Amino acid sequence: MINIETIQWIGGPDGCVDMIDQTLLPNECRRIAVRNVETLWQAIKTLKVRGAPAIGIAAAYGVMLGLQNTPPTATVEQLQNQVRKTCDYLASSRPTAVNLFWALDRMKQTAQQCQATSPGEWKARLLAEAHAIRDEDAAMCRAIGKNGADLIQNGMSVLTHCNAGGLATADYGTALAVMFTAQEQGKKFHVYAGETRPLLQGARLTAWELMQRGIDVTLICDNMAGHLMSLGKVNLIITGADRIAANGDAANKIGTYSLAVLAQAHKIPFYIAAPSSTFDLSLPDGKSIPIEQRAADEITQPWGHRIAPAGVNVYNPAFDVTPHEYVTAIITERGLIHHPDTKSISEILTAK
Amino acid sequence: MINIETIQWIGGPDGCVDMIDQTLLPNECRRIAVRNVETLWQAIKTLKVRGAPAIGIAAAYGVMLGLQNTPPTATVEQLQNQVRKTCDYLASSRPTAVNLFWALDRMKQTAQQCQATSPGEWKARLLAEAHAIRDEDAAMCRAIGKNGADLIQNGMSVLTHCNAGGLATADYGTALAVMFTAQEQGKKFHVYAGETRPLLQGARLTAWELMQRGIDVTLICDNMAGHLMSLGKVNLIITGADRIAANGDAANKIGTYSLAVLAQAHKIPFYIAAPSSTFDLSLPDGKSIPIEQRAADEITQPWGHRIAPAGVNVYNPAFDVTPHEYVTAIITERGLIHHPDTKSISEILTAK
Repeated sequence: MINIETIQWIGGPDGCVDMIDQTLLPNECRRIAVRNVETLWQAIKTLKVRGAPAIGIAAAYGVMLGLQNTPPTATVEQLQNQVRKTCDYLASSRPTAVNLFWALDRMKQTAQQCQATSPGEWKARLLAEAHAIRDEDAAMCRAIGKNGADLIQNGMSVLTHCNAGGLATADYGTALAVMFTAQEQGKKFHVYAGETRPLLQGARLTAWELMQRGIDVTLICDNMAGHLMSLGKVNLIITGADRIAANGDAANKIGTYSLAVLAQAHKIPFYIAAPSSTFDLSLPDGKSIPIEQRAADEITQPWGHRIAPAGVNVYNPAFDVTPHEYVTAIITERGLIHHPDTKSISEILTAK
Repeated sequence: MINIETIQWIGGPDGCVDMIDQTLLPNECRRIAVRNVETLWQAIKTLKVRGAPAIGIAAAYGVMLGLQNTPPTATVEQLQNQVRKTCDYLASSRPTAVNLFWALDRMKQTAQQCQATSPGEWKARLLAEAHAIRDEDAAMCRAIGKNGADLIQNGMSVLTHCNAGGLATADYGTALAVMFTAQEQGKKFHVYAGETRPLLQGARLTAWELMQRGIDVTLICDNMAGHLMSLGKVNLIITGADRIAANGDAANKIGTYSLAVLAQAHKIPFYIAAPSSTFDLSLPDGKSIPIEQRAADEITQPWGHRIAPAGVNVYNPAFDVTPHEYVTAIITERGLIHHPDTKSISEILTAK
């Protein structure tokens, strides 16, 4: 049995990160040790680790890596300064995933506030906070799965996009948690995975995860989804999200918006599975969510093979925004938010 | 100046086909000589030549290749039998493109009906018919371009899918003919080319053709089209078609249907450019258009590189059908058919 744990911390406060290099999947499930913060920044940037919750966990552990070159004589105040510098640096790795900033803020706050009698104890407290971020993420995945599993009935076909699975989180994932939980409940169903150009997370990661767990999956190109819907072959759509505004407008992998519009035209329910940490209530709507633009060669030179004329202009946004009107419900660890809007979201997120 | 003639016949009745191997574009514009009908069948099947009109021309010349192993003593009747066998064989190469059957029928009829005093003269008549199919296609391209060019105004952005350009025909293409003609009229506009997974005809061929002719083109992944539309960056969509039923339902490259639905949701006009030979009036609507299913490895192993788990199920339809309600107009060599339906199509196609 291979170790499919997405990301973990090995050892004590001076340990290191151990993670799957997701860029090598599905051909190879290779684990890499990450021992310094620059390598971690690169791993996030180049999508060796990706998916909003997993990026948050990586960043939290990254704060620990940032402390490793501090001298043994460093005071807690010096360590706190180092945490701030590390957080600013890691925040520059990817602009859209709100979990990144959320996890870094939490580490910064812990660094400022935790009481410790020695730098060693302080570091141990900080590591415990990073572990807590991971553990809460795992519990959140299970809760999302439980809350959403009723949506999947025997004989259904579910369409998903990109990878919102265990590889995107510490455990079961978000969209895929719903499927894993439905499977645990003994349901038989089928999944269509959109390959998700340009970086093919659906083909490489989602298909791999579903097959690892014995779920019946069929791979399609993204442009086949509308045709499938017109044939009546899709019963519901579940995707993840990278950031959700206060009114429910949701940024997710490019192509999600097209699926949502197509779902509405075919009267197919469209669900987003995401933890409450994905909500950014400081943004009233999706218009102010920053959309990361990525390099042209992701599209023109996959695996080093040129598939487009040299010098062609390329437009490569990593995300799009699905307005909340297209979302049937958001599946969170706190429950389902039906017909999400500012009011219904606020009620669920602020409930004790 | 490189020779960008898609397909041509070299020599007399015993000559050969000379064509661009489109699978090598855009990295290399290599011409290949095709000297027997089996190689031509393979070239059609493996998309070395593709696009409904170009397939028709290739098949017409293929009928000539099919005669090359007949003995010098063969009678006209024996040659006619050979033509029928060749046509049956070539008809099995690709099931959706109606031009293939249309061109083969025309060659069969000529083979039956043409008067000739010798097998040599009969062969020359048959070759003249194949040349006529090519020449009429070139004239048709120019007429489509002229009829559609008014749709493109200065400053517009046009989205297209797959390749309905010169590489798909004998000359200017269909959808791209509209753009080439608008450019000749001095208009400045911009084109978004969808890459068109799995075989990337948009990235490899359309971007290349537009750049060869100096038109400003930006390449996108297919799943980015909806996002672009939501940003107001697409003014109109023009695609080709592989077969159009009597009521205007149109089969075209997979992904076209999704674009048509997205266009309607964003109130963007959606045009199909296609010659009258693309209409199959024997089919009342699109439900009876056969949809070619292609091999899984086109999706899972592009350029020999595996991008999905071994053994994953794959669904790979080459085409989808866009119902006529989504089509603003069909641009034909005989004029525009607005709001196409059985009546308006019949009026244009049967007009003298």
